[in-house]
Amino acid sequence: MFVRIDLESDVPIYTQLTNQIMEGIATGDLRPGEALPSVRSLAADLGINLHTVNKAYTILKDSGFIQIHRQKGAVVQSGGMPPADDAYKERLAEALRPMAAESLGRGMSLEDWLTICRASFEQLKAKREGRSI
Amino acid sequence: MFVRIDLESDVPIYTQLTNQIMEGIATGDLRPGEALPSVRSLAADLGINLHTVNKAYTILKDSGFIQIHRQKGAVVQSGGMPPADDAYKERLAEALRPMAAESLGRGMSLEDWLTICRASFEQLKAKREGRSI
Repeated sequence: MFVRIDLESDVPIYTQLTNQIMEGIATGDLRPGEALPSVRSLAADLGINLHTVNKAYTILKDSGFIQIHRQKGAVVQSGGMPPADDAYKERLAEALRPMAAESLGRGMSLEDWLTICRASFEQLKAKREGRSI
Repeated sequence: MFVRIDLESDVPIYTQLTNQIMEGIATGDLRPGEALPSVRSLAADLGINLHTVNKAYTILKDSGFIQIHRQKGAVVQSGGMPPADDAYKERLAEALRPMAAESLGRGMSLEDWLTICRASFEQLKAKREGRSI
């Protein structure tokens, strides 16, 4: 499993886990229909609480990224990730706002900001396309 | 005071408060040296817990956006916000990554992504420059 948890981070563990599984799905490390480890085994592997894994899986399920079967357990949504609809784009803009504000306040130019935004996206895109940049 | 708390939001209240004060500083609504409300009065005004306001103020202090004087209370850092150094840019890239991953996974193109990133920044910049877009 590709997940790495940083216990020193300010980011809550369930968020780290959610983000990394989502990134795995987005970049194709995790394929549609692929099974995720059981809550119990992932919690044991990472040395974290069952509830933390459960919370991450629930968020991923509610967001439409995974399905939870009574027997097979958690599997990556077979239809692929839900599309970027207007509600998602609005939520994204809302989430970007505090980062844009802090960057502006710290004196970054629009160009500096866009350079970092572009790099973040291109890096993941390259990962998905199986080449490194 | 310009703060609006959304009790229905998934974003923790102390984060909403931190973000909005930071945005106020970044866009110039709150001037360097300007006093913030006391913890007690802001908590009462917003109908939230003292500890929540305290947590937001502590984060803003640790990030170098405000100072906390024993007598004057919380004031906006008079030297302006700290600059966007390499450590900040690294932290920003790290924070953007899950959003870029989700956007990529949901089928957004680089152009779509950059359009939303650009709009977020330009909106705040326009606010600072005192014009609306």
